[in-house]
Amino acid sequence: MTAGDTIIQDQLDGNHCFGCGKENPLGHQIKSHWDGEESICTFTPKPEHCAGPPDVVYGGLIASLIDCHSVGTALAHFYNKAGRGVGEAPPLWCVTGRLTVNYKKPTPMGVPIELKAHIVESTDRKAVVSTTVSANGEVTAEGETIAVCVPDDWREA
Amino acid sequence: MTAGDTIIQDQLDGNHCFGCGKENPLGHQIKSHWDGEESICTFTPKPEHCAGPPDVVYGGLIASLIDCHSVGTALAHFYNKAGRGVGEAPPLWCVTGRLTVNYKKPTPMGVPIELKAHIVESTDRKAVVSTTVSANGEVTAEGETIAVCVPDDWREA
Repeated sequence: MTAGDTIIQDQLDGNHCFGCGKENPLGHQIKSHWDGEESICTFTPKPEHCAGPPDVVYGGLIASLIDCHSVGTALAHFYNKAGRGVGEAPPLWCVTGRLTVNYKKPTPMGVPIELKAHIVESTDRKAVVSTTVSANGEVTAEGETIAVCVPDDWREA
Repeated sequence: MTAGDTIIQDQLDGNHCFGCGKENPLGHQIKSHWDGEESICTFTPKPEHCAGPPDVVYGGLIASLIDCHSVGTALAHFYNKAGRGVGEAPPLWCVTGRLTVNYKKPTPMGVPIELKAHIVESTDRKAVVSTTVSANGEVTAEGETIAVCVPDDWREA
């Protein structure tokens, strides 16, 4: 895959996404990079990102992180398939078709969350991405995301 | 079901959830109520809650809203099954076991999002909740949530 130190989202211009857009100053601005065949993202929730109990991470945040990390991973995969670095013209874009999250156990607050994703299968315009969420070395949630390539002008629709 | 005008989340003490806790001043504080056999939640995203393009709602927010509205609906259902109003002692609590979101089309920014949920099936401790997300009268996403009852002291774990 692409160079390990390259942050996928940093190569994307015109991305205002609350989860992963470098152009959203109020958003999470997650950062994903390849480590071999897996992509990695580390994120530390803010104190307000809790679930019912203040010491457990909000499941909606976990879903959001899985969504953005997985779609970024798929986008990088499609750039790679096209023989280009992420963000190299002509631009590609992906959206989420389906997101499934299995919550295995509470994710503790106060420590970094690590997401690892890999491509399970892909066609020319769809990729199935499998993602794990871990904290303190334990998997707390698993995600499956179907990412779909859309024309780049989807972003200007 | 319970009285239509009663806000489910307002009956729950000790809920710090970023999505639905009235005790989280920085959270979304969604409000759900019954309308017959369906529960309804209306939420207007803030300008920063956008996807890649600034005029489309962030999919992670949609997943979060489905999660909290559906689990709140399940919790109200379990209180009802137990013959008590929401929040009436002894307290019940639910968590998300699995969340699936199908994104059908972009959800436009700048208008209220309406979520409608109903219980598809339930056992003593699990409920399957089906939820639609609409904007401008069009369904843009569909969710299925498996909510699981946990002991109330889960919140103090």
